[in-house]
Amino acid sequence: MISVDRYQAIIKKLNDFMLGYSRSGRMILDIAVNDLINGGGKRLRPLLLLLSAEFGDGDKDKLLPMAAGVEFLHMATLIHDDIIDEAELRRGKMTAQEKFGKNAAVFVGDFLLTKAYSLFADYLSRESLLKLNKVVSLICIGEIDQFEGKYNTDLSVNDYLKRIRRKTALLFALCSYIGAYETGVRGRDLYNLYKFALELGMSFQIQDDLLDFTGNKIKIGKEADQDLITGIYTLPIILLLKKDNYKERASYLLSKEYLGEKEISEIKELLLESGTLLDSRNIAEKFLGRAEKYLERLPENRAKEELRYILNCQLTRKK
Amino acid sequence: MISVDRYQAIIKKLNDFMLGYSRSGRMILDIAVNDLINGGGKRLRPLLLLLSAEFGDGDKDKLLPMAAGVEFLHMATLIHDDIIDEAELRRGKMTAQEKFGKNAAVFVGDFLLTKAYSLFADYLSRESLLKLNKVVSLICIGEIDQFEGKYNTDLSVNDYLKRIRRKTALLFALCSYIGAYETGVRGRDLYNLYKFALELGMSFQIQDDLLDFTGNKIKIGKEADQDLITGIYTLPIILLLKKDNYKERASYLLSKEYLGEKEISEIKELLLESGTLLDSRNIAEKFLGRAEKYLERLPENRAKEELRYILNCQLTRKK
Repeated sequence: MISVDRYQAIIKKLNDFMLGYSRSGRMILDIAVNDLINGGGKRLRPLLLLLSAEFGDGDKDKLLPMAAGVEFLHMATLIHDDIIDEAELRRGKMTAQEKFGKNAAVFVGDFLLTKAYSLFADYLSRESLLKLNKVVSLICIGEIDQFEGKYNTDLSVNDYLKRIRRKTALLFALCSYIGAYETGVRGRDLYNLYKFALELGMSFQIQDDLLDFTGNKIKIGKEADQDLITGIYTLPIILLLKKDNYKERASYLLSKEYLGEKEISEIKELLLESGTLLDSRNIAEKFLGRAEKYLERLPENRAKEELRYILNCQLTRKK
Repeated sequence: MISVDRYQAIIKKLNDFMLGYSRSGRMILDIAVNDLINGGGKRLRPLLLLLSAEFGDGDKDKLLPMAAGVEFLHMATLIHDDIIDEAELRRGKMTAQEKFGKNAAVFVGDFLLTKAYSLFADYLSRESLLKLNKVVSLICIGEIDQFEGKYNTDLSVNDYLKRIRRKTALLFALCSYIGAYETGVRGRDLYNLYKFALELGMSFQIQDDLLDFTGNKIKIGKEADQDLITGIYTLPIILLLKKDNYKERASYLLSKEYLGEKEISEIKELLLESGTLLDSRNIAEKFLGRAEKYLERLPENRAKEELRYILNCQLTRKK
């Protein structure tokens, strides 16, 4: 896992900027934003942006606001996603929704989205802004697809990969793209940074989904089994539903009106026994391998070392 | 009230553009957007933008996308606002929330917001974009203020006016500003158009709030008494709570755990008897008077005639 200490200084700077920029004098907003910012988080997206920018040599002053913008955007989707998920815990803290109710959570998310867009309008080039809008639109469509696909036992691996590409990987890719593009990186380097982050994002989401089954609630800081309970079927389940010896039993269990502890633990046994947890992990590693391939094509510098470090952390990620 | 026929051609063009631009191939999104667009609505905000643009002579091609952008933005706030309000009806139709559940409604709103921002990034000048972001941020703060002020019987008239300025009037003003600014209007004319729409927006929201008490459910297309039931105290109630002979009884009724038909009808009697409904109407007309003052300072042209027509419609508004 990524050592937060390693990036402590830059994360502190980022947090301070975000706190200052989002202060509104409204208790609900200020507390919610404060909780989100101080609640930890790896800040992977801003780090990708900042590290990718080191491959260029353009204006570096606008990087911190841009990095704050992508983190605000990410936080807004977390809050709105929590409303969907009815997740009880996010990063081990009470969600904005639990603290202030679902209604206020909608507007806390909107407020963060607005802060993100203000920063983008102020600092991004028009090219990046257009690209960003396309990605945010696809993120929404990804969320809707996930919603429409709830409790659907016919999802293919391809449906799943498409969904996580939109839901997660494209924003990773966009972060690297923005950092690079806005500091003048073009051509092959820009392409390789974009693809590196895209593949990293794919593996990140698969691992994230795996942790829903295998993770320690305290470590991952959110309720385990949430996806399963709310009908969001991720890779291990989708693979299980394709396995001849398991699909019948798995479909039967998932079709139950109420998924209790007994059913959940049987499903988990099936996942272990059938090997689909391991298969999923292998697929995640395949994406990491691809990410590495793109990374290796980049010129050697300090930032590349750091990106390699982040990539290696993914391999051993426990939260 | 505004005759929809009068603007039929342009509204048709606008609707077609919005339908085309927002098509996603996702059932939930397409149906929700379709319902919103075909569900009527006066399209006041796009009309303000388009009419204000007639005072300038810059590029007119980008006006329709901009007008669609402000209407998408407005629709997004309606959807997210409905999640807050738990309103059962909006424009006489089922809300997105009722049709697809609260969870999907969050993302339908986000999707519309994204579509709005895409259009703004494509068509707005950076100056307008920055102004827009400030306004959207204030709209969020206005919504949060409204939420934080729920069931607060100490609200002042000034609190209320500040809230509706943020919640409604600033977007009206922004629409006129954008239409005018983007077609080259500057100086006094730009200022007068902005102020005209701001004052119009103030009176619009006061009237809207009055209709919550006096409106016919079918005509206004939303549940009456909703604000009252959900603890959003608007002008007539705030004025009532300041009246010596009424404040005690009103506070007592509003403090009840559950507001039934009996309490609501007594509150309405108090509103009538105390004259605060009429007082509120007079305040709305005062804002209309101010709007007219700014309008009259503008050069005579067809658009001014139309803005005068819209202003006069506000006087007799029933829905």
